[in-house]
Amino acid sequence: MDIAARLTLNSDVTRHVLMAFLKHEIERFGFRKAVLGLSGGVDSSLSCFLAAEALGPENVLALLMPYRTSSPESTEHALQVVNITGVSHKTVEITPMVEPYLESDPQMSDVRRGNVMARMRMIVLYDHSTLWDGLVVGTSNKTELLLGYGTLFGDMASAVNPLGDLYKTQVRQMARALAIPEAIVQKAPSADLWAGQTDEGELGFTYADVDKLLYLLVDERFSPDEAIAAGFDNKFVATVGRRLRASQFKRALPIIAKVSRRDVGHDFLYPRDWGT
Amino acid sequence: MDIAARLTLNSDVTRHVLMAFLKHEIERFGFRKAVLGLSGGVDSSLSCFLAAEALGPENVLALLMPYRTSSPESTEHALQVVNITGVSHKTVEITPMVEPYLESDPQMSDVRRGNVMARMRMIVLYDHSTLWDGLVVGTSNKTELLLGYGTLFGDMASAVNPLGDLYKTQVRQMARALAIPEAIVQKAPSADLWAGQTDEGELGFTYADVDKLLYLLVDERFSPDEAIAAGFDNKFVATVGRRLRASQFKRALPIIAKVSRRDVGHDFLYPRDWGT
Repeated sequence: MDIAARLTLNSDVTRHVLMAFLKHEIERFGFRKAVLGLSGGVDSSLSCFLAAEALGPENVLALLMPYRTSSPESTEHALQVVNITGVSHKTVEITPMVEPYLESDPQMSDVRRGNVMARMRMIVLYDHSTLWDGLVVGTSNKTELLLGYGTLFGDMASAVNPLGDLYKTQVRQMARALAIPEAIVQKAPSADLWAGQTDEGELGFTYADVDKLLYLLVDERFSPDEAIAAGFDNKFVATVGRRLRASQFKRALPIIAKVSRRDVGHDFLYPRDWGT
Repeated sequence: MDIAARLTLNSDVTRHVLMAFLKHEIERFGFRKAVLGLSGGVDSSLSCFLAAEALGPENVLALLMPYRTSSPESTEHALQVVNITGVSHKTVEITPMVEPYLESDPQMSDVRRGNVMARMRMIVLYDHSTLWDGLVVGTSNKTELLLGYGTLFGDMASAVNPLGDLYKTQVRQMARALAIPEAIVQKAPSADLWAGQTDEGELGFTYADVDKLLYLLVDERFSPDEAIAAGFDNKFVATVGRRLRASQFKRALPIIAKVSRRDVGHDFLYPRDWGT
């Protein structure tokens, strides 16, 4: 199987589907506007381009939420996206809110610090969702969602997510199709927590490799043995399988103890625009 | 139909079910411990009593997270619960993290301020979940969940929630069955945002009334007309129906645009302990 070929999207169709998705899902709840966190990375840049095209740039608010140690290049790239798309933007530094908590525990690991920052950005984003009367557009891609490489109730929080079924390599493909500046598409993906941090350095493998493996395991329902037979290293298959399983809780709602005839989560289930 | 009788639980059975739920759902993910936010209200007090009994008090961490304007009585009640149950506790003031954001917009409404605080508490709670290696036990009851009277990614965030299928009046019944101090059970429920705030004042109806109506609409699947025929005021039925529908988004995961054969949310669906 030519996995790279299978991962290649029809850019025109996909662009049309994702824009129609954003417009339809936002309008069916009675909204016209959207807010999103714009880091200057390729994911949030693509969400911003799609939202601007789907809703009109005047209906999109991009929030830049740098922390003290965030790279100035991230802000530059975010501002480039603002300029090209013509969306509104606002900068809210999270440093004053984050710092008192980080200072309370000097031993705090980088993962814990990163989660605090991601969730603080969610607070700012959701508050602006109320202020701006717009829905929060997500920026998590399928690779991150499947690996659990994101913060629950942080960057994973959104109302509608146009990227959640695009692998990282497909996000790059779509970014190029929408003419997002090559510097943004090509730079090493990073949570930008400290200088030199990269996703691929932290994960221990490349997006190009893991996207192919995830495609086999998830989309094609290959067993681990079949993936190994298809040429993937058995340690890599085991690592990715562990991440897939261990992160399932991030893709599910809280579990509620059922004691009645109908409860939230088990059988009181409706679409969001139920009855409207 | 005698609705009050239908809402009355068998306390012994329910207590057993909820404790078994907590123990089982926490242990099946490989955890032994729990963390929870303890406000001193009846909901979080009941969650704390249940968790202490299910896991042993040595395995439960209760976090007190007051804001500058929180009532001293709330803290007193929370400390009473800590003393009776014997759980560990820690106080983390959210004021220093919340204040820089609130000060950035002096026009901020009470609802927006309340959401910021509820989400700030989620940040502290989830960070302690990592630090303490325990799962977050929820404290949202069925009445709040159905009315959308809670903050998404704030107090609604948890891993396992023993109260999500108990109406507020049933929470009170169970609290009495577990001998939670009467002062906690009887006080007017409040988000404790400002002095004198009460849930029932904000909602415009009592829990006693709305629980009966919700029971008919949700558990017994009554139509609005049938609820009116059963004696409920038609404006009240309309108000509650609107709240039920308008808050569905708080009870659902982010919507993802489907472009592939299998995506997170539509068809990549497993229980949380899938494959472990």
